[in-house]
Amino acid sequence: MSVITKVTTYDFRFPTSATFSGSDAMNPDPDYSSAYVVVSTDAGDSGNGFVFTIGRGNDVVVRAIDSMSETLIGRNVEELLDNMRLAWDLFVRDSQLRWLGPEKGVEHMAIGAVLSALWDLKAKRAGKPLWLLLSEMEPEELVATLDFRYLTDALTAQEAIDILRAAQEGKAERIAHLKEVGYPGYSTAAGWLGYSDEKMVRLAKQETEVMGFKQIKLKVGQNLEDDLRRLKLAREAVGPDIAIAVDANQVWDVPQAIEWIGKFKDYDLAWVEEPTCPDDVLGHAAIQKAIDPIPVATGEQMQNRVMYKQYLQAGSFKVMQIDATRVAGPQEIVLEYLLAKKFGVKVCPHAGGVGLCEAVSQLAMFDYVSVSGEMEDRVVEYVDNQHEYFVHPTVIKNGRYVAPLTPGNGTEMKIDECMKYLHKD
Amino acid sequence: MSVITKVTTYDFRFPTSATFSGSDAMNPDPDYSSAYVVVSTDAGDSGNGFVFTIGRGNDVVVRAIDSMSETLIGRNVEELLDNMRLAWDLFVRDSQLRWLGPEKGVEHMAIGAVLSALWDLKAKRAGKPLWLLLSEMEPEELVATLDFRYLTDALTAQEAIDILRAAQEGKAERIAHLKEVGYPGYSTAAGWLGYSDEKMVRLAKQETEVMGFKQIKLKVGQNLEDDLRRLKLAREAVGPDIAIAVDANQVWDVPQAIEWIGKFKDYDLAWVEEPTCPDDVLGHAAIQKAIDPIPVATGEQMQNRVMYKQYLQAGSFKVMQIDATRVAGPQEIVLEYLLAKKFGVKVCPHAGGVGLCEAVSQLAMFDYVSVSGEMEDRVVEYVDNQHEYFVHPTVIKNGRYVAPLTPGNGTEMKIDECMKYLHKD
Repeated sequence: MSVITKVTTYDFRFPTSATFSGSDAMNPDPDYSSAYVVVSTDAGDSGNGFVFTIGRGNDVVVRAIDSMSETLIGRNVEELLDNMRLAWDLFVRDSQLRWLGPEKGVEHMAIGAVLSALWDLKAKRAGKPLWLLLSEMEPEELVATLDFRYLTDALTAQEAIDILRAAQEGKAERIAHLKEVGYPGYSTAAGWLGYSDEKMVRLAKQETEVMGFKQIKLKVGQNLEDDLRRLKLAREAVGPDIAIAVDANQVWDVPQAIEWIGKFKDYDLAWVEEPTCPDDVLGHAAIQKAIDPIPVATGEQMQNRVMYKQYLQAGSFKVMQIDATRVAGPQEIVLEYLLAKKFGVKVCPHAGGVGLCEAVSQLAMFDYVSVSGEMEDRVVEYVDNQHEYFVHPTVIKNGRYVAPLTPGNGTEMKIDECMKYLHKD
Repeated sequence: MSVITKVTTYDFRFPTSATFSGSDAMNPDPDYSSAYVVVSTDAGDSGNGFVFTIGRGNDVVVRAIDSMSETLIGRNVEELLDNMRLAWDLFVRDSQLRWLGPEKGVEHMAIGAVLSALWDLKAKRAGKPLWLLLSEMEPEELVATLDFRYLTDALTAQEAIDILRAAQEGKAERIAHLKEVGYPGYSTAAGWLGYSDEKMVRLAKQETEVMGFKQIKLKVGQNLEDDLRRLKLAREAVGPDIAIAVDANQVWDVPQAIEWIGKFKDYDLAWVEEPTCPDDVLGHAAIQKAIDPIPVATGEQMQNRVMYKQYLQAGSFKVMQIDATRVAGPQEIVLEYLLAKKFGVKVCPHAGGVGLCEAVSQLAMFDYVSVSGEMEDRVVEYVDNQHEYFVHPTVIKNGRYVAPLTPGNGTEMKIDECMKYLHKD
């Protein structure tokens, strides 16, 4: 038996705003940041988790994580790791903490970091990467860790077991295939609004011709003429066989979104991402209906599973974009994948930032192996940012995420090298 | 000209869990708490605001407020108070802070506390209670402080001006009438789940016969037989002329809510409050449709105006329950009232806690004077909790909130007396 002895947090802020990397219509000057946590035990091992933010307020997330240490320290590690539903309930169902959301924003993301750290520890002790640990759990065992509160009008525990059970067939072949070819990615590197046309075109060529990505994404929504010019230049640069998506980062109201996207009809877009506020289930449904057949995509700022449920019920999008650190860790993300499978919507995760590629690609791989069984019509976002600060950074080969084999969730940071970016009050 | 010189925060936690006051199906042991802020100027005056929480995590809200001091300190006070839209934009539209929500949870509530403090200072300098300050602003002047982003498919700035302009007629009479008779309240004092039948009956009689309230509310949702027995006892205690509402505090899933509330059909309920997760627009719409004509009520944990917009668009409730400290201060609450007026839904604010009665009753009074023009079919919640810690506590007379005449938002606390409840890490 071992117990949790320490919860260590770090407020890391990388000064990315200096280069306009990450700039879009809503976020002109993000400083990519990580509210990073290490949960240590008296057995000498540890698990790590984090929340990605874009600067100011990262300290508030760190504080929320710190506040959870009193619940964690002294706790029996095996009891928690063998019953991750207990760990979920300790925080997500803490009624006093719940008041701060409920299940959204700073507190929910902080809980996600802590639960991710516990899953990381569980995977490390099992000697498996997280995607494989999740994939090899028995359907009943995995479902026992999940909280179906507020979902049962759309998905029950029994339905979840049935979905996972059905995917047992061919699982070994999919694991082998995944290890061989990797999971498809797409690149946002060329698309930031702060970049010149010349830089955008150069990067679009590089990402497709050199890196091998089959899809790129451009930021839009600040100026319509700029958008149309950049779309035309990008298409000329990458040719007809590369998919192009656009991303408005929530800059429009519903009527404006419908009007603006209407101008994109001739550009053969893979999707239009975040046309408006992520809280607006009905607004996105209206937009999806109006711009059909262009798919609406959203999710990177979707607060929890109850919102995904409604987006699926209302037909508010055709592309679901989960995020690794917006919700309460791997358990909530597994629920999101199960919901998507039930409703037949494809998932193309949001990534980039600091550590999001490392974290979310493992969940996508779990989905391919154990839930949807599909990956060739799906893509995980990729941006080449801050990967050098990770002990086992994401590896891209021929435009695809190589399946990691190292035990854990893959998001362990090189603490010593990050310390120069430690934010002090 | 004066400048902001100091932002002082307090983490006050009252040990209310010891008495089961505040206990319900979701919150068995709340410790009523206040993340309280005082914004001081070099002119020697100050404004105060707060977020109500129920214990753990109150420190995280305090931290979020503290983080905003760097933006506030040194700022020209008159410039902010004369242009409260600027103050809103400084925080709600800060793209880095926005990432932490967007516009929800800890960060959004903390912004609400700061904006409330600025409105308090503005009202104090004008020598008026907040309800009167808001009521006497010209429609164009008030609307200029409001952010219609994400609302224009339901309410435009011009429509808001039209609503306020139409309510100019009879305003002076309504102000006089309000000062004379006060605003109707209702009592939740009897209804906590932790109370015995005997205590519930005694308090139900006291609240109606002695205090003069025309409506009471009981907590439900833990055990159906208990609910039905308590409803029967309460009805016998208060007689046929007193309205009775029930409150499930989000304990049900959608199918369960419909089934459970079906058993209440014969009890002539004023409303069923918080049947499920406040994020579930479509779920509430399904419940409202199924239990009609019993009204669904919700809002105390509604994260922002975009959710209210959708509840109104989808017909998800018949009673809208705003809260004083869940959203970004008076400006967002004014938008909520304008949306309710546009869609013809009545608003019965959530209160209780620490300071919520003091804060929200002033917004309800503004609505009566300047937006809906109605109050006799509306009620503001009242619970007799912690009022003794306020410099100008809410006064109830004949079951109605007396209109306050003291300048400010009415939520100034007796700091010295609260210090014994200051939480230390």
